[in-house]
Amino acid sequence: MNSKKNFFELIKTDNQARLGKIKTLKGTIDTPAFMPVGTQGTVKGIFVDDILKTNTQIILGNTYHLFLRPGLDILKNVGGLHNFMNWHKPILTDSGGFQIMSLSKFRKIDKNVGAIFSSHLDGKKIILSPEKSIQIQKVINSDILMVLDECPKLTNDKKVIANAIDISTNWAKRCKVEFNNAKNKFLFGIVQGGLFNDLRNESLEKLLEINFDGFALGGLAVGEKQDEMFKVLNGITKKMPNDKPRYLMGVGTPSDILGAVKSGIDMFDCVIPTRSGRTALAFTWGGKINLRNAKYKNDKSPLDENTKLRDLNKYSKSYLNHLTNTNEILASMLVSLHNINFYQEFMREIRTKIKEGTFSAFYKKYIGMYK
Amino acid sequence: MNSKKNFFELIKTDNQARLGKIKTLKGTIDTPAFMPVGTQGTVKGIFVDDILKTNTQIILGNTYHLFLRPGLDILKNVGGLHNFMNWHKPILTDSGGFQIMSLSKFRKIDKNVGAIFSSHLDGKKIILSPEKSIQIQKVINSDILMVLDECPKLTNDKKVIANAIDISTNWAKRCKVEFNNAKNKFLFGIVQGGLFNDLRNESLEKLLEINFDGFALGGLAVGEKQDEMFKVLNGITKKMPNDKPRYLMGVGTPSDILGAVKSGIDMFDCVIPTRSGRTALAFTWGGKINLRNAKYKNDKSPLDENTKLRDLNKYSKSYLNHLTNTNEILASMLVSLHNINFYQEFMREIRTKIKEGTFSAFYKKYIGMYK
Repeated sequence: MNSKKNFFELIKTDNQARLGKIKTLKGTIDTPAFMPVGTQGTVKGIFVDDILKTNTQIILGNTYHLFLRPGLDILKNVGGLHNFMNWHKPILTDSGGFQIMSLSKFRKIDKNVGAIFSSHLDGKKIILSPEKSIQIQKVINSDILMVLDECPKLTNDKKVIANAIDISTNWAKRCKVEFNNAKNKFLFGIVQGGLFNDLRNESLEKLLEINFDGFALGGLAVGEKQDEMFKVLNGITKKMPNDKPRYLMGVGTPSDILGAVKSGIDMFDCVIPTRSGRTALAFTWGGKINLRNAKYKNDKSPLDENTKLRDLNKYSKSYLNHLTNTNEILASMLVSLHNINFYQEFMREIRTKIKEGTFSAFYKKYIGMYK
Repeated sequence: MNSKKNFFELIKTDNQARLGKIKTLKGTIDTPAFMPVGTQGTVKGIFVDDILKTNTQIILGNTYHLFLRPGLDILKNVGGLHNFMNWHKPILTDSGGFQIMSLSKFRKIDKNVGAIFSSHLDGKKIILSPEKSIQIQKVINSDILMVLDECPKLTNDKKVIANAIDISTNWAKRCKVEFNNAKNKFLFGIVQGGLFNDLRNESLEKLLEINFDGFALGGLAVGEKQDEMFKVLNGITKKMPNDKPRYLMGVGTPSDILGAVKSGIDMFDCVIPTRSGRTALAFTWGGKINLRNAKYKNDKSPLDENTKLRDLNKYSKSYLNHLTNTNEILASMLVSLHNINFYQEFMREIRTKIKEGTFSAFYKKYIGMYK
């Protein structure tokens, strides 16, 4: 258990904001950290060695997608996702719970069995039990695993949320047993509870009893307003243990991240930078830029003249506008890489400001810029 | 005129095959040379700095596409295509003739005016005269320009071909006048004549009278059999001047290139390596590989374990098969880059073999491998 005790180090706090370090066999992660999403074994549109150049220290893989394709046989054969995709730093995998809610055509939740659903690819019936989810994540060979949870859609119906907590708690226990304190791996519980503070607290308390290496917040950024999400975060983070990492799943815009860091969140993942990269929406230190806009047709300036990543500072907005208008792959490649790089620069600045004790000023400057 | 005399240097011949050097202000090109196609100001799916890493010394830009998008105003504003796309080595532009034949919805050829056609994008009526084509290519600021020609579809009708030669010769003269011996730029004539040796000879003779910096062969690789193309090449190259580069337009597979080099061709361009890259068809030293094939699902070997380009030798066929099956952009990125790199390795080997006087053995080994 000794290595697990050194998993997370809280270095400094600046009000609620936390500067920390997560240590895994595959590498160290400075927190607050952003994890690019590698849904199907690739961060969409970016070479793995370029991901490294953005100072990304951990990526996220999607258990649901990887289970369907390439499937467990191939992943087993190659020794896991790190080898398969040539990414040799830490990987966190979700449990598949979120995709069952968002993607599969038909699903039934059976507390005793698991999630019973049809593949969104071929309609094949699949049962994902808590045990199976952990087994798959072990085959993927991820460094940080998530428990299987029931992730309800946004609702005001307290009964629905309470029921999801009941099921998720049961599944969390079973995941813990199946995980069996695997060597050099870490397991996170997922706090549910929708927008209800009391249910969030209840869910957290039950997970604390089971005891995990870290705690995630699920069921947020599912359609609620940013203020509502921040309110939940303010409430729940005060009850979360200080000595373990806190992960806000599926979030978000730079603005979302700022507000969450302010409440004491340490980890984030989101498809926004890469998805936006494929639709010519760039995040920059001056705000969001829609490169499809005709006003960039003759703009010779780059997205960021100070970037030192590859030669991204040599490509003009005019050229990016042209590549976008002509549906060239290179547009997605350049803007996706730029966006991931910007997100990592943004996280590095956040960490610097917490270290200096000036996070609050940074927060005020940028909170309104990326809405 | 002095610099123009040093434009091409014939270093060595091995039977008909030629080893040479083309010298332009923007750089030297070792021949036989392959030019990746950058249709719309990007070699599809490949970062410009990676194109450089494949030892590509010249790329091709398409006048027709660049004229429509981004258009002349933007290209003028930025000082040409080199600056626009960040490629600072030589660029050759075609004249737009081929795309008028293959892409535009409606066209009329008027010898005295030029090609009158509708844009394939918005149907707008456009007149491309020989003078206009040269003016556009000057705005693109390419290093090697092509005359506007009428490029007829494959036909056995000798009259159609003879008429195209008549028009093309007239246009070639007007292009030469408009070109006005531009400083540090070079103009190529285009030999037409379909599959008729006598018409090819007639076209070449007329172009020799006008006098150009190099001579291209147009109207080949438009649907005829490889043997038919080789027969035309064998005939016409014997009549082409030794002291000027010979360019076979739009060709081809590695096998096509081998046969053409054997006849004494120096330059090639083709979309095959990048287009195949987007459909998971890889060219390797062992032949063509269709990565969609299920037999690669568990194949841990890379496309080429000896490649030193980026870390292409770390990606298994199994991973590429997965990326292809899941429609991931990275599949196009990796296979396109691999293919351009392979083509350039193939050209380097061709040059080495000509230098050593062993091209004939190399030809025999590979001529049947990429059909």
